[in-house]
Amino acid sequence: MQYGDNYFMNLALEEAEKAAEADEVPVGAVIASGEGEIISTAFNTVEKDGSCIMHAEIKAILAAQKKLENWRLDGCALYVTLEPCIMCCGAILLSRISKVIYGTIDPKGGSSGSILEGKIEIVHGIMEEKSSILLKSFFKSKRENIRYGKNMTD
Amino acid sequence: MQYGDNYFMNLALEEAEKAAEADEVPVGAVIASGEGEIISTAFNTVEKDGSCIMHAEIKAILAAQKKLENWRLDGCALYVTLEPCIMCCGAILLSRISKVIYGTIDPKGGSSGSILEGKIEIVHGIMEEKSSILLKSFFKSKRENIRYGKNMTD
Repeated sequence: MQYGDNYFMNLALEEAEKAAEADEVPVGAVIASGEGEIISTAFNTVEKDGSCIMHAEIKAILAAQKKLENWRLDGCALYVTLEPCIMCCGAILLSRISKVIYGTIDPKGGSSGSILEGKIEIVHGIMEEKSSILLKSFFKSKRENIRYGKNMTD
Repeated sequence: MQYGDNYFMNLALEEAEKAAEADEVPVGAVIASGEGEIISTAFNTVEKDGSCIMHAEIKAILAAQKKLENWRLDGCALYVTLEPCIMCCGAILLSRISKVIYGTIDPKGGSSGSILEGKIEIVHGIMEEKSSILLKSFFKSKRENIRYGKNMTD
């Protein structure tokens, strides 16, 4: 690979920042080919699209399948700033993605351990602090908005 | 409820038949409100859309969220002819659907037992035979096409 995991995770973090700017839970994802080519990038748009389906991982998978004109993403790696949920783990398995690299764990909704472990390669902790800080700042700011009675999108 | 489970499952079966006609794995889904109103209907279009995300359940959830302009489907029931896979079970939980009713079990890809059990109400075996026959006929015809060297979409 031309680029290492940190390079792609930095791109995923840039996507997560775009989500934060749009007042969405800041999660970003990148799909790279086995040769280190960027296939797709995406961020969470659950609020904008009004659907819980529109997680960064699902959007990155949809975009990659469209770009490659192939729903089989064998050999590809998915970089995502937050540990994938059950839905996204299921989509990852269906899409035949070979490797998942995530930033910070999701103690509430994360499911990569129970669903992906032993089935595909998983790496975690890449750019963990940055991924985590982005999420914590977002939710802290949401709580402060509630405290001061500001408008909330959710 | 004005209509019973068989009524909605029959509609889901009609969706599955549309999938079969389009040479897609025949799975159909219907989302009904707690008051028995049909919110959305959908069938599997994985081949047409070139994406493993486009399962009948995901499409029905996306359509219901768009129609209701709300991603929370509390109180709604999802009728689907085949036991949902991991991805769809995850999407069902995220969408807050209250009840899942499915036709036939999926011994290979089904995950409702391990993922949904104890979290939301699950009913299975409604119109089981019809749901199963539709799938079996589809795959039997696919195998025969292979045997006789006909063109396959997959």
